[in-house]
Amino acid sequence: MSEFSIIKNFFQREVKSPDVILGSGDDCAIVQVPIGYQLALSIDTMVLDVHFTLACKACDIGYKAVTSTLSDLAAMGAEPRWLTGSLTLPNADEQWLSEFSQGLYAAIDSYGVSLIGGDLTQGPLTITFQAQGIVPNGLAVRRSGAQSGDLVYVTNTVGDAAYGLQLPEGNVAQNRPDAQIAAGLVMRQFATSCIDISDGLLQDLQHVLTASDVGANVYLPHIPLSAQLLALPLSQVIPLALTGGEDYQLLMTLPKDQQAAFEQAMPTKVTCIGEINVDKKLQVFDAQGKCLQISKSGYQHFKKL
Amino acid sequence: MSEFSIIKNFFQREVKSPDVILGSGDDCAIVQVPIGYQLALSIDTMVLDVHFTLACKACDIGYKAVTSTLSDLAAMGAEPRWLTGSLTLPNADEQWLSEFSQGLYAAIDSYGVSLIGGDLTQGPLTITFQAQGIVPNGLAVRRSGAQSGDLVYVTNTVGDAAYGLQLPEGNVAQNRPDAQIAAGLVMRQFATSCIDISDGLLQDLQHVLTASDVGANVYLPHIPLSAQLLALPLSQVIPLALTGGEDYQLLMTLPKDQQAAFEQAMPTKVTCIGEINVDKKLQVFDAQGKCLQISKSGYQHFKKL
Repeated sequence: MSEFSIIKNFFQREVKSPDVILGSGDDCAIVQVPIGYQLALSIDTMVLDVHFTLACKACDIGYKAVTSTLSDLAAMGAEPRWLTGSLTLPNADEQWLSEFSQGLYAAIDSYGVSLIGGDLTQGPLTITFQAQGIVPNGLAVRRSGAQSGDLVYVTNTVGDAAYGLQLPEGNVAQNRPDAQIAAGLVMRQFATSCIDISDGLLQDLQHVLTASDVGANVYLPHIPLSAQLLALPLSQVIPLALTGGEDYQLLMTLPKDQQAAFEQAMPTKVTCIGEINVDKKLQVFDAQGKCLQISKSGYQHFKKL
Repeated sequence: MSEFSIIKNFFQREVKSPDVILGSGDDCAIVQVPIGYQLALSIDTMVLDVHFTLACKACDIGYKAVTSTLSDLAAMGAEPRWLTGSLTLPNADEQWLSEFSQGLYAAIDSYGVSLIGGDLTQGPLTITFQAQGIVPNGLAVRRSGAQSGDLVYVTNTVGDAAYGLQLPEGNVAQNRPDAQIAAGLVMRQFATSCIDISDGLLQDLQHVLTASDVGANVYLPHIPLSAQLLALPLSQVIPLALTGGEDYQLLMTLPKDQQAAFEQAMPTKVTCIGEINVDKKLQVFDAQGKCLQISKSGYQHFKKL
């Protein structure tokens, strides 16, 4: 099967969005960013045996590749518009390609984005997507804006994806995570900073704290957990909640006086888990008010080198 | 060496362009597309032992990765502005990374673009870049606009990169090719279609013909060749000129009545090599006016599957 047949059979659907001037099939795609908006860009790569294994369903891999890329847009408060991809394949396995393509387009349809271009090469299985989104001029939410006194919030529940890794078949949070796009679009009206939880709550919070030059207190009993995680022993829950990656939930800071308006406006469940302070340390307190001694590290791509 | 140290040491230079609102280090980069312009996007992946070998100098690999991506913008008549990249590495080889980074930034400085974001993962050596450029509304030059009677033009000389593959040390055309950005910006005022020669003159011309639903006559003696290639026997030159890839020269069509103005305006040497006709065949004629029997195929990433 030739490069051009693979593209034609699995990755070429008509794109109808009026902001796509020219989709795939030429040297470049051409799109129109509306006046008054800035362009947000994020690129993400998934590698076989690092981010997924051959035991993973190809449709889930396709879905998750889109989610993980769009999640970065959600964290800026950007609206996803256009997706580009690069797929490196060892061979043209039609069954795998068909399932991958199904999952990919399921995500594309679900998020309302257009796949506007890509590249296909032969080599070790590697999947790269870049997401392009739009955000009103000046409204992108950075990691660097957290202020002392701000509250720390998280959407939905955390640790579920990491828990899924321990289950024979995984779970929805691990296999088919969703990017918090709707939450991001509302969050940008309130938040002083935001990041998506891809590497683990503490590691990602630390990125915000470092960028903002502040510290935070986090209260373990306040961290929102699903019923499944609440049923586990505390010793098992703590690492899942604090260092489990791939949740794709949003972690935000906002001024205290915005709390009520924020909670009411947000389309998803949000929970206050702590507050920002000036002492530049990240501390986690348990139900007894004791400061936990824990490793902050979550997922690091090069930790073993 | 951690993921964050690699990024900090090799891929984090200050970006000063006023159209970069936020560079790398956050969830997304944020850029401003000027009013009256559309955004052009192209993604390209290079894989070890497919597009380059470990014998290639890392600095050349870095330079060429940028060139091959920006070349797609040149072919649309777009001005390159922003680059994003994803690097998958088996290990943190500091010597290799340092040289790769040098070549990468040499190209970035040479083309006046900003590296605004990226991803770093562990796995088989794979290099993906996406180029973002701007083009005045409606002025992007597509593959599909060639008209019967149009002249077929090419910039500079062709076949040099393929010839470099046959030399022990390669040559500049193979190791350090340049994207025809300046030519692209002028070409867009005249051309009805354009493509960059990455897979070989005939294969890339065929893409234009298919997209435009036309045919072409190409005259072998008119194809511009460097002094090095002119010194070779004809039997060796023909496949280099017609099917050699990675030249990154522009192949354009334009109306006959634009010929004089086009030739005068172009900042690079341009040569008319044939014309578009309606019979939908691509034919190559030799100095005696005889139609050559040749394979049209150039480089295909999946030809062996």
